[in-house]
Amino acid sequence: MAGDTMTQFPTGIGTSDADHISLLGHDLAGELLGSLTFGELAYWLATKRRPTPSQLRVFDAVLVSLADHGFTPTAIAARLTLYSAPDSLQGAIAAGLLGGGSRFLGVTEDTGTFLHASVADLGDTAGWDDAAWDELATSTLTAARGAGKRIPGLGHPVHKVTDPRTAVMFAIADEEGLKGPHLRLFEAIGRVHPEIIGRTLPLNGAGVAGAALADAGLPLALLRGFALLARTAGLIGHLAEELEDPIGPDVYATVDRNAVYTSNALEQKE
Amino acid sequence: MAGDTMTQFPTGIGTSDADHISLLGHDLAGELLGSLTFGELAYWLATKRRPTPSQLRVFDAVLVSLADHGFTPTAIAARLTLYSAPDSLQGAIAAGLLGGGSRFLGVTEDTGTFLHASVADLGDTAGWDDAAWDELATSTLTAARGAGKRIPGLGHPVHKVTDPRTAVMFAIADEEGLKGPHLRLFEAIGRVHPEIIGRTLPLNGAGVAGAALADAGLPLALLRGFALLARTAGLIGHLAEELEDPIGPDVYATVDRNAVYTSNALEQKE
Amino acid sequence: MAGDTMTQFPTGIGTSDADHISLLGHDLAGELLGSLTFGELAYWLATKRRPTPSQLRVFDAVLVSLADHGFTPTAIAARLTLYSAPDSLQGAIAAGLLGGGSRFLGVTEDTGTFLHASVADLGDTAGWDDAAWDELATSTLTAARGAGKRIPGLGHPVHKVTDPRTAVMFAIADEEGLKGPHLRLFEAIGRVHPEIIGRTLPLNGAGVAGAALADAGLPLALLRGFALLARTAGLIGHLAEELEDPIGPDVYATVDRNAVYTSNALEQKE
Amino acid sequence: MAGDTMTQFPTGIGTSDADHISLLGHDLAGELLGSLTFGELAYWLATKRRPTPSQLRVFDAVLVSLADHGFTPTAIAARLTLYSAPDSLQGAIAAGLLGGGSRFLGVTEDTGTFLHASVADLGDTAGWDDAAWDELATSTLTAARGAGKRIPGLGHPVHKVTDPRTAVMFAIADEEGLKGPHLRLFEAIGRVHPEIIGRTLPLNGAGVAGAALADAGLPLALLRGFALLARTAGLIGHLAEELEDPIGPDVYATVDRNAVYTSNALEQKE
Repeated sequence: MAGDTMTQFPTGIGTSDADHISLLGHDLAGELLGSLTFGELAYWLATKRRPTPSQLRVFDAVLVSLADHGFTPTAIAARLTLYSAPDSLQGAIAAGLLGGGSRFLGVTEDTGTFLHASVADLGDTAGWDDAAWDELATSTLTAARGAGKRIPGLGHPVHKVTDPRTAVMFAIADEEGLKGPHLRLFEAIGRVHPEIIGRTLPLNGAGVAGAALADAGLPLALLRGFALLARTAGLIGHLAEELEDPIGPDVYATVDRNAVYTSNALEQKE
Repeated sequence: MAGDTMTQFPTGIGTSDADHISLLGHDLAGELLGSLTFGELAYWLATKRRPTPSQLRVFDAVLVSLADHGFTPTAIAARLTLYSAPDSLQGAIAAGLLGGGSRFLGVTEDTGTFLHASVADLGDTAGWDDAAWDELATSTLTAARGAGKRIPGLGHPVHKVTDPRTAVMFAIADEEGLKGPHLRLFEAIGRVHPEIIGRTLPLNGAGVAGAALADAGLPLALLRGFALLARTAGLIGHLAEELEDPIGPDVYATVDRNAVYTSNALEQKE
Repeated sequence: MAGDTMTQFPTGIGTSDADHISLLGHDLAGELLGSLTFGELAYWLATKRRPTPSQLRVFDAVLVSLADHGFTPTAIAARLTLYSAPDSLQGAIAAGLLGGGSRFLGVTEDTGTFLHASVADLGDTAGWDDAAWDELATSTLTAARGAGKRIPGLGHPVHKVTDPRTAVMFAIADEEGLKGPHLRLFEAIGRVHPEIIGRTLPLNGAGVAGAALADAGLPLALLRGFALLARTAGLIGHLAEELEDPIGPDVYATVDRNAVYTSNALEQKE
Repeated sequence: MAGDTMTQFPTGIGTSDADHISLLGHDLAGELLGSLTFGELAYWLATKRRPTPSQLRVFDAVLVSLADHGFTPTAIAARLTLYSAPDSLQGAIAAGLLGGGSRFLGVTEDTGTFLHASVADLGDTAGWDDAAWDELATSTLTAARGAGKRIPGLGHPVHKVTDPRTAVMFAIADEEGLKGPHLRLFEAIGRVHPEIIGRTLPLNGAGVAGAALADAGLPLALLRGFALLARTAGLIGHLAEELEDPIGPDVYATVDRNAVYTSNALEQKE
């Protein structure tokens, strides 16, 4: 930064002056407002490419599939935070999003990344049949097992046999011509994994979401971001309900009244 | 909480069992996936009512209008957080949302609340003409001035004469038959405020967003929440760009290298 | 910001160059490390004044009194966040702090501010006896009741008769010669409130903390900040325990398994 | 969770009933208030062991050394958040802590963990001389280089030759009899690294903090937590200053006014 040169800050997102607001190179007021949905804008902002109608339908479906899963730890944390700090809705949403890490929301990202490592350099796979994908799935899983890696996207604590979202997401992507290499490989993993890992697990909804987002053209580094965007809508639903019909006080009371003091937790480290 | 009775936790959002996921009383996989947009789900989650197509178009337009305003303090804070903690995308998004307080995003909520206080008990205003709304606007502003209150939704640091979003949002609401009492009163405030406050200010985009959301049936207590949802998409755009073409290091360097130590900041409190 | 002038960013906290780090105008390595406690530095950073030993003892005692209250909603939220996102300790701490709003931690700030409004312009009160303070307390409470304001610092959900921290904090401040006007007024409120509000409540520990911090010279605008600093230590304790002996999974299971779907929560808004 | 059995939630931190508050198995009001410092409580909460005076002196020194580094990205993010949402001090502190990730605050944790991997199974090293430590340091660095791993705790963007905190922290630990295997190995790394990595770098302050905390008995999984606790005090200092003498508006203006729209950021992904 030379003494008399201002640092410049480049951006391709938006600019404004006294009379105009430009977003992604387009006139926000004259061109965009009223003519695109929020989901379409979210895709566009993340990729700097406007989605095709097919890409948008898959993207919307994935966001819908990820928006809520009932009383998750993150929904409970957001509700407890609103109970403690009712003056700060942004704090409650932020607290809920902060649980969007490796254990729950991370599956979407991890699955996309895991699949991408195997398909990134494949070239044209348009002519591949199921047997070809099964072969790739087998070698991918065998390598992962050999390296002691967990295989993301397999299994679910509640949906132990079938996750109801999975088949529907495959069908939507297929209808839209977007069942690409990530979804094809993921589907093949569903077929071949029992003989490799020794038990049969369902392909889960968070995993298929990651595969579908990758085939719909979304960047891998942001897959967790889309899970967080979807979850923001779910958290607003939970907080709206908490304002009307709170569970925060009962969660607090349930834990606090059933607390037991354990001096051996104390001893064990001394 | 009686000794042998389990506390129950009521919710109308979602439930699931081994084979089904229910969201808002509907089968997520069978009914919802692929047949509604993310914006529609967000409206539905927040209100427990599925929006009409008109309500949804206004809602989508408002979210699009609020998603980004370039290098706002919150976008800069999110980018700096990603620079410091690149391993936690959720932390960067949360940091950006935490700036969603009174000064910037609060205008949407404040305007909705301010207008609602005047229109909540009006009964049927279908037959009101502009003169009637102007009269209400005049009494509302006069009362606010008398009580020393700030009038939300007026003025903008950059758009000093006209905020380009405002007229477009009025037009969209009008097309959809949703230019209700909040927007009508806000429009009248635009006409009458110069003679009351002594200068002419534009109706700003955040204010018209609050009025439009209220007329589209969204709950006032959550208006800030929708601004935060919209901003989440904008923050993902900023963070996607930061991953490719970072400004965080230059913001840090610009501030750090131009820091001046001021011992009188020290003295002044001693 | 003229075209060729760099904006400067003033600070009295710290600077550094290749060989030195200066903190609050002192040489960090040569003067400060090893010669002051963390509490002393925290006071100094917040006020730009080094505390006297008496101020520091009161400050440390207040921080100790506020550090933990068992399974509060914020401690539970932090533990749930760590369970969801074990890769981000900073996210779990941040989630816990975000509950530091009006309902729980706000009492410290509210009490300090409430008392300060009555004592700020008193001049020298060194000669005041209890009767004089009782008179001020009576007029303060009467005015607050007349204005429909809540009186902060009175009552506690668990300690219904006496909060054990209160008398000890008064005694420590007295020993240190720091029982000033905020604590004197708060003590008088303890004596006179039954005849004004019609029932007898204990002076609570969060309230006495606010009064004691104000008398120890800490700025009112930051009283919530000290409660948050104290709570950060408590949250680290909870998260250390959660890493060894987690309750997060059981809190989640308890809420999730006792969820009941209430379609009337749905109806009530339609 | 059987149908009629309440889940219990164990904790060794604190409990309370109508008349008592117990913290870490001690009477908060009767035993602890006024008789221990905040730093001592923080150590105790994290470890469930009360520190020795020597451990406490090292712990306080480390917290002091980590509390502030001027206008770091996290301090700037906290200030921008306060500017945007002045109504939520907890949000500004949380935003600042969320930058406490791998790039900056992570060094303390990474260094502690890196050193611990080499010293955990050493047995008694009381009789080791510098040559023995140098040998271990050489094999540790050689193995890390061979595995392509970064060596944490070496180098600093500003203190290119010597970090002034490092020698002082070694001296304090030595005075207190707490220069244990982590610090001895770190010191040896300072001696031997030039011949292994081909250039001479300083042992940095964040690294020595991690080594000192480990030798003072703090758990490795929480080293980042102590850096965050220290930083909370620093952030309160920054926010106190921001309330009096804000830089947030100037940071925003500097970035926003020097924004340049880059359509090629747009192209590059299409």
